[in-house]
Amino acid sequence: MPATSFSCSFLSLQPRFNSYVNPIFRSLTFQLSSSPFPFNAPFSSIRIRCSLSRPAETNSTTGGRSGALTPGPSVGGDVQKIDVNPPKGTRDFPPEDMRLRNWLFNHFKEVSWLYGFEEVDYPVLESEALFTRKAGEEIKDQLYCFEDRGNRRVALRPELTPSLARLVIQKGKSVSLPIKWFTVGQCWRYERMTRGRRREHYQWNMDIIGVPGVMAEAELISSVVTLFKRIGITESDVGFKVSSRKVLQEVLNCYSVPEYLFGKVCVIIDKIEKIPVDEIKKELKAVGLSQEAVQKLLQVLSVKSLAELEERLGSSGEALADLKQLFSLAEKTGFSKWLQFDASVVRGLAYYTGIVFELLKEKGLLPELNLHIDNIVCALDEDLQGCAAMVANILREKGHSVELVLESKPLKWVFKRAARVNAERLVLVGNSEWQRGVVGVKILSTAEQYEVKLEDLK
Amino acid sequence: MPATSFSCSFLSLQPRFNSYVNPIFRSLTFQLSSSPFPFNAPFSSIRIRCSLSRPAETNSTTGGRSGALTPGPSVGGDVQKIDVNPPKGTRDFPPEDMRLRNWLFNHFKEVSWLYGFEEVDYPVLESEALFTRKAGEEIKDQLYCFEDRGNRRVALRPELTPSLARLVIQKGKSVSLPIKWFTVGQCWRYERMTRGRRREHYQWNMDIIGVPGVMAEAELISSVVTLFKRIGITESDVGFKVSSRKVLQEVLNCYSVPEYLFGKVCVIIDKIEKIPVDEIKKELKAVGLSQEAVQKLLQVLSVKSLAELEERLGSSGEALADLKQLFSLAEKTGFSKWLQFDASVVRGLAYYTGIVFELLKEKGLLPELNLHIDNIVCALDEDLQGCAAMVANILREKGHSVELVLESKPLKWVFKRAARVNAERLVLVGNSEWQRGVVGVKILSTAEQYEVKLEDLK
Repeated sequence: MPATSFSCSFLSLQPRFNSYVNPIFRSLTFQLSSSPFPFNAPFSSIRIRCSLSRPAETNSTTGGRSGALTPGPSVGGDVQKIDVNPPKGTRDFPPEDMRLRNWLFNHFKEVSWLYGFEEVDYPVLESEALFTRKAGEEIKDQLYCFEDRGNRRVALRPELTPSLARLVIQKGKSVSLPIKWFTVGQCWRYERMTRGRRREHYQWNMDIIGVPGVMAEAELISSVVTLFKRIGITESDVGFKVSSRKVLQEVLNCYSVPEYLFGKVCVIIDKIEKIPVDEIKKELKAVGLSQEAVQKLLQVLSVKSLAELEERLGSSGEALADLKQLFSLAEKTGFSKWLQFDASVVRGLAYYTGIVFELLKEKGLLPELNLHIDNIVCALDEDLQGCAAMVANILREKGHSVELVLESKPLKWVFKRAARVNAERLVLVGNSEWQRGVVGVKILSTAEQYEVKLEDLK
Repeated sequence: MPATSFSCSFLSLQPRFNSYVNPIFRSLTFQLSSSPFPFNAPFSSIRIRCSLSRPAETNSTTGGRSGALTPGPSVGGDVQKIDVNPPKGTRDFPPEDMRLRNWLFNHFKEVSWLYGFEEVDYPVLESEALFTRKAGEEIKDQLYCFEDRGNRRVALRPELTPSLARLVIQKGKSVSLPIKWFTVGQCWRYERMTRGRRREHYQWNMDIIGVPGVMAEAELISSVVTLFKRIGITESDVGFKVSSRKVLQEVLNCYSVPEYLFGKVCVIIDKIEKIPVDEIKKELKAVGLSQEAVQKLLQVLSVKSLAELEERLGSSGEALADLKQLFSLAEKTGFSKWLQFDASVVRGLAYYTGIVFELLKEKGLLPELNLHIDNIVCALDEDLQGCAAMVANILREKGHSVELVLESKPLKWVFKRAARVNAERLVLVGNSEWQRGVVGVKILSTAEQYEVKLEDLK
């Protein structure tokens, strides 16, 4: 099955440096990987994980639970306390943060659209079995799972891929290949919280099912490069370290290591930057690799160029052909500067938790996203509130957003509110003007003032 | 506290008829209500609940679990079964359903924007205590709650308002009034499933905090009317039955019924269409109302016009003044045809579960939302795939969506794919054309064909 075996190839994205700081998006984790998939079709996938942290948390590892218990005001004799903090590891999105979230997610969605992906979604809650079917994985320890009231074992999804698999299998032959789906969804991990790691986060997943060649991988990398360019990240900020699992496979085949050991070897190799190399050697021997195979494997994994890889593996293997094709496609489509070959990039079968990329606040990559409402409409007399509401609706029907002043307020208050919502125009509904069928309009940036007939409002 | 007391007034939206059927949005529940709120500020709120059901469910009460267990294909010797269905009471959104969901939610968001509301969001998971602090409510039985791995009692939110309250209290004086926030969020109820009622659904909440008058209510009704108009629902399809809690309050004051009984009376009155009137009478007497008060109360609640209400309550009360103002505002802003006075509309303190409005499929209110990708780009030769990717990226940079054919496929397949994604243009990258710096373009609707220079592609 060359298709399925290619679906085990890996691309892993890694920033060239980790730098701090930005107050809202405290960390973005980018994951690019093709993971084993429970159906016989080639599968390419890219994930971008974003934890959207709040400024208050930059000096804390507790997930922003800085608020105190505040007594809830009395309601009908029912005096009780309300915890003003969201549960540990979760967060609110007040308007200022929601604007940033929408900004980022809209980029995800627009890029997905440009690349012809269709949006899908799955339940936040899935059967626990969906995530634990792959035995022996660390995800089990991090699963946000529980028993529901009907005694079913369920879990808040830790990632989106198993749900994708479930839905694709369910649809069966009714979907035409290739499938190109994307999701921006919330995921949960019950884990110790550290800076930038909450128990919930969002992932942008783009998945291609049914394309055996590296074109699919190239398309996915290209889409992330497009995202980076749109939000102002350059190839000097971040790069993709790329390898293929076939590199590992070829070395193992060379020493007749049985195929069922492949997964175990991956898990060990994945730890290469986390534990001493002697430890790695010991573990590889423990699963049954010969001294020679271990030696050769570690040599190959240290290779940092395709030329050197060719020297060591020969020019006939699939690994080299795939990687060469990927780099050539990258050259043509203009993202080769973002790519770097690194044979040591091997993702374990377990869920990927490494790499964090933190946007530089100093680069000014975050847009200024202020509230902006086109018009503020105000009655100068309480009796004219209905007329003001009418004016507001005329403007809304023409596609303008309107903040209608809902109470009798002094003009000073109205100007302050107009400034807060960054209104362009103030529309005043006064008695004598109304009699003449006009309203007063003030352009707030220039202080220009004039009257407009109701029917000419636009 | 006139402000807080007004925050207990009620508007309840009710369709004039319940009609069936539409395959995707099988039910939309609209809720308009001002509920008691745990802070001393006037609070107006409107909720639209939508359960987006799938065609398969129209003949079933089991929530669409019609799929069977399908064996997961073998992956590396790990043969296991995967349940292809989402957990009971939840659902997937495959692309065709996601388009409809996006269509509806975008209307929610655009209308909210037109009315100057800011978007916010809260965690899906909240402390159980947040929802159970109001004692004795049915919501407790329906709470999707559990103990997390840190032994905290948590719940998947059954509604959005308690989270709103939590955040507003947390923000305290840092937010300027009025607050106008909206959320489109997923909510959960652990309840028996019936047609159109799943364990998860979405709510569009619009909340105004800090405006004591009925202008806030008028603004909220107006926004929902705007939504209805946009999606093609008219006042002959649906109407708002409107009353004010003050009607009830005034009757109770009249008979010196103590204020703490108000909540209990509301809960009883709320059942008026569900249980026999004798039962209602018995329950009202049981909480301590006199025979006379019960009589008068039931008389007043049967009133269907403001004129009659004035006869019975006199013209001096706040209830009448508020209702008159609301109807007058509705007249001015053009939604009076959608309103109908009905004194019996009293919402209990418990969460609202009544009224379901089902869009008529026959009215053709659902848009045809097909997948649509602007261009399909295809290399005529495997060696030109990189060039095709380059062409795709040129078009994407100009803002067009592109389906790039990622494998060598016969032209027949490409045309079929183009039809499936409803592409406008087919761009073919051939060898001799590429040498001349051009690509072939075919307009798929007219079959018109021509060559375009790469630099002229747009």
